[in-house]
Amino acid sequence: MIRRIGQRTLQLEDQPFLLAHAAAVGKKEGDGPLGAQFDFVTEDDRMGQKSWELAEGELQKTAIETALKKGGLQKSDLDLILAGDLLNQCIGSFLASMQSDVPYLGQYGACSTMAQGLALGACLVESGAARRLVASASSHFCSAERQYRFPLAYGGQRTPTAQWTATAAGAAVLGKQGSGHIRITHALFGKMVEMGVKDANNMGAAMAPAAYDTLSTLLADLGAQPNDFDCIVTGDLGHVGADLLLTLLREDKIDLSPVYSDCGSLLFGDEQDAHAGGSGCGCSAAVLCGPLLRDMQAGKIKRLVFAGTGAMMSPTSVQQGQPIAGICHAVVIERSGT
Amino acid sequence: MIRRIGQRTLQLEDQPFLLAHAAAVGKKEGDGPLGAQFDFVTEDDRMGQKSWELAEGELQKTAIETALKKGGLQKSDLDLILAGDLLNQCIGSFLASMQSDVPYLGQYGACSTMAQGLALGACLVESGAARRLVASASSHFCSAERQYRFPLAYGGQRTPTAQWTATAAGAAVLGKQGSGHIRITHALFGKMVEMGVKDANNMGAAMAPAAYDTLSTLLADLGAQPNDFDCIVTGDLGHVGADLLLTLLREDKIDLSPVYSDCGSLLFGDEQDAHAGGSGCGCSAAVLCGPLLRDMQAGKIKRLVFAGTGAMMSPTSVQQGQPIAGICHAVVIERSGT
Repeated sequence: MIRRIGQRTLQLEDQPFLLAHAAAVGKKEGDGPLGAQFDFVTEDDRMGQKSWELAEGELQKTAIETALKKGGLQKSDLDLILAGDLLNQCIGSFLASMQSDVPYLGQYGACSTMAQGLALGACLVESGAARRLVASASSHFCSAERQYRFPLAYGGQRTPTAQWTATAAGAAVLGKQGSGHIRITHALFGKMVEMGVKDANNMGAAMAPAAYDTLSTLLADLGAQPNDFDCIVTGDLGHVGADLLLTLLREDKIDLSPVYSDCGSLLFGDEQDAHAGGSGCGCSAAVLCGPLLRDMQAGKIKRLVFAGTGAMMSPTSVQQGQPIAGICHAVVIERSGT
Repeated sequence: MIRRIGQRTLQLEDQPFLLAHAAAVGKKEGDGPLGAQFDFVTEDDRMGQKSWELAEGELQKTAIETALKKGGLQKSDLDLILAGDLLNQCIGSFLASMQSDVPYLGQYGACSTMAQGLALGACLVESGAARRLVASASSHFCSAERQYRFPLAYGGQRTPTAQWTATAAGAAVLGKQGSGHIRITHALFGKMVEMGVKDANNMGAAMAPAAYDTLSTLLADLGAQPNDFDCIVTGDLGHVGADLLLTLLREDKIDLSPVYSDCGSLLFGDEQDAHAGGSGCGCSAAVLCGPLLRDMQAGKIKRLVFAGTGAMMSPTSVQQGQPIAGICHAVVIERSGT
């Protein structure tokens, strides 16, 4: 059963197990500071496919299949796949799971999709609607770049606030029963927060207010301080958005900085020309399902807030002058034992 | 608590209440045979907006606000919005609810999105994750046509198997507590079924095998015959897909025809030049949240299977020669009392 505490935080009494996880990334991501902690790094961002969209599907499929393998599971053990990506009509995810023979619910939370899938998936496992499910998400620099911005060959200048869409995918298996130590204890579904940002090259600014809303609500609902957690991580605010989030919280006398990281800021090194950091559904999905959950397994992180951030926009909505709303969904993940 | 019965059907013990519903449609849909049974028919498909995308957002917002009003509810009574549409990055739904101040989970099930939202929403209400939520979906002929096919002014010939994307939106409010008679008793999450159809102008054929998979599984899981229901309705198979579904079931000695309808076949009259029928997320959403739920309120339908159908594809995936997978999610809706 799920209990609501405070304003909006959902407390999961049975605490679904995070049974298995895997991250699959592209070459640039593999060359970055976290490279050694991903399960799969491709040498060929095309993944042997004829198009970038098919390559993204293949990358997400690799993450799902690797997670299942690591957990000693088959696709037939799954009752549900919750998946999403940034492509029009979410085809990266549909291509990844089309032949899976597993019930499928497509999710669209922009870059927050991994957190959305985990929050929703935890509730579904808790409720009995699924005994075991996978939450997955992906993005691919090449499919995203030509869809959102310019042809790949164009070589346009990027602004300092621009982020680099990660070629990455992550998958996590949740289950009611398990022998592991890592479990989801709380979930919070985010609201769209729109503060008038219209610059599609400054997603960090568009998303920071939503991250602020979600994290301050979560801390208040739990009656917690930042240092009650070993790590509070946002999805892809990047350097610009992360600074804004810390500033917004500081105005409420909350200092997040001792435990705070952002997946987008962690993914690439300064020398990798990613400007304000990584972004895309795959960014937070791979950083969570790679390094962060590895650190939890190793006992280095015991209590984690994973707060996936997303920017609700499309090239069409931006061209039509509509503002970009941010959204941020969060889950609390805990490791029991030593 | 949710119990799994048979292979995949979810039985909802508390049976969430369908507290309120509303449908908002465009002029052509209002001129059709169901016109009088929609809550709102616009005279101006632009909905007073500057773009078709904004018009679609406004139409979905109208459906949500009308449903809340009919149920004597405010937005602040909602714990969650589950919404989706066909536009790139699902902007119809994001524009509809950006200012709502309600937690939001974007859904992408192509034209099955309304059924996906209801099935998922029923599980979330049952679990305690939300006390009250809205499930909504929309489509707009003009925003869809230019995104999927041709510029509106182009005047291309349509094939006989082509369907007409409905300018329509539907919204339904689910709640744990209620005084009404209409409740959701079962849900079934569909699998993607892909049978090699690559013709983007024959969605009925692409989706019929998924509808067959979902409906035959549901009937078997429930140990039910078609005539245990007053009405079994699919989302937007249209005339072509509906025929295929009946044929597929007949091979299993199941005769669905006495209780079967398809929202896409119902929406437009023969003289309205919609060829194989209506389609789009809004088609099944509006036919359910308009005429069908009105008939349930009036006691004319007591037991309904609503099986939303969707085609997983994008213009890009079709151009790249990928097959179109169908998907079909179902809910059983019952009216108690007289």
